[in-house]
Amino acid sequence: MTYCVGMMLDRGLVLMSDTRTNSGVDNISTFRKMFHWSNPGERIVAVMTAGNLATTQSVVSQLEERNKTPAERHNSLLEAETMFQVATIVGELLRDTIAASASDNGQTGAGAFGASMIVAGQIKGMEPRLFLIYPEGNFIEASFDTPFFQIGETKYGRPILIRGYSRNMDFESAIKLLMVSFDSTVKANLSVGLPLDLLVVERDCFEPLHERRIDGTDPYFQAISTGWGEALKQAFHALPNYVIDSPVRQAAE
Amino acid sequence: MTYCVGMMLDRGLVLMSDTRTNSGVDNISTFRKMFHWSNPGERIVAVMTAGNLATTQSVVSQLEERNKTPAERHNSLLEAETMFQVATIVGELLRDTIAASASDNGQTGAGAFGASMIVAGQIKGMEPRLFLIYPEGNFIEASFDTPFFQIGETKYGRPILIRGYSRNMDFESAIKLLMVSFDSTVKANLSVGLPLDLLVVERDCFEPLHERRIDGTDPYFQAISTGWGEALKQAFHALPNYVIDSPVRQAAE
Repeated sequence: MTYCVGMMLDRGLVLMSDTRTNSGVDNISTFRKMFHWSNPGERIVAVMTAGNLATTQSVVSQLEERNKTPAERHNSLLEAETMFQVATIVGELLRDTIAASASDNGQTGAGAFGASMIVAGQIKGMEPRLFLIYPEGNFIEASFDTPFFQIGETKYGRPILIRGYSRNMDFESAIKLLMVSFDSTVKANLSVGLPLDLLVVERDCFEPLHERRIDGTDPYFQAISTGWGEALKQAFHALPNYVIDSPVRQAAE
Repeated sequence: MTYCVGMMLDRGLVLMSDTRTNSGVDNISTFRKMFHWSNPGERIVAVMTAGNLATTQSVVSQLEERNKTPAERHNSLLEAETMFQVATIVGELLRDTIAASASDNGQTGAGAFGASMIVAGQIKGMEPRLFLIYPEGNFIEASFDTPFFQIGETKYGRPILIRGYSRNMDFESAIKLLMVSFDSTVKANLSVGLPLDLLVVERDCFEPLHERRIDGTDPYFQAISTGWGEALKQAFHALPNYVIDSPVRQAAE
């Protein structure tokens, strides 16, 4: 499993991903699931991946044309004219990669070789955009009605995102919100694990505003992880108490 | 989908279930998923169900021997000597009911006709017990290492249970905790819905201490639902802020 979130704010985009991959609980590893490329001053494009690791690594390698010698490589994501074209390129590559693995093996694909991706970025003169790419290669785009996408193990960390998000929050608050969401997920699902990768893309700033790898010894993550448990307990105690209205108890008194 | 939680406390047992059933999002209904039987002063047994509605209703009907005339009916759950026997009876009936549906239809069972159940209760002279019954008819028992079981849509409501539970909490706090967990789930998954059924079983009190149906107009549930959003926001704001350390931003300043 995996957990990645891409979030759209008025100020720009914030992306966070975990790094755990597993093939059974007895075989876990750490792999990067967040990638970005930029043409400083002109564009920045980021991709996050969930699903079959061979599929997602193959897609990223093909995007970077690693089958060619370094001098001959062109990254088509840096040449596409719009973010819509970027999403289309990633989607087609993802679909074709899954199909190739499936047909080579006489298997039926999506289950075994499937993957999904989040694509985010901005090209100069246009708005920041955020897409969710399906294994079939088609995609949907976020809007402020649905301003964030999650892939992988989406459920444990979703309630706090729904309640904490607001489009005009600053990057610092958005990062705090994502840390809480990831902490809840990591605590509940062994197949999501630290370290986390973080990328902040400010609107009209065509390079990363902030980029970090957050591991288990990170003091801020630790403060959130322990502080959130305590804060939740206080929030819980502050809620009104239920009153048990019981004939049995009244009879006993 | 469904959401049911059975929780073991030092003081006894608290059970909560939703009532929504669906066959596609365009066909939803309300059905009870919590059932209990008691021999006041001697035992109380409760069952919660998730999964195929025809399967779970059939199991409950067979437990009550509704194929016989009222005078001839015996509820074997009220005659079993131990809670372990009660769990065994429910498990065998569940497995056989699933198998019968599957073989009658030439289908392969568990997927289409599957169900799981939570069984809880106490018989005089013994401890309160809590079991999770699998579609295969086998089961596991809760202990204070794993003091609650969830069935159905378990993920959205799990982080708050993990963080809020303590074995010595009173029933009122446990009910508040379950309300928060159910509210988070209902907000995230359309296939879990109000009204909720609530049952409180006090240790060594062999009848329900408290039993309620909670619908959407319930003022306490509404207070929790709105209050929790606000409490979460305050808890979130009380956490320390992240500090973005960015060469790009510093260069711009």
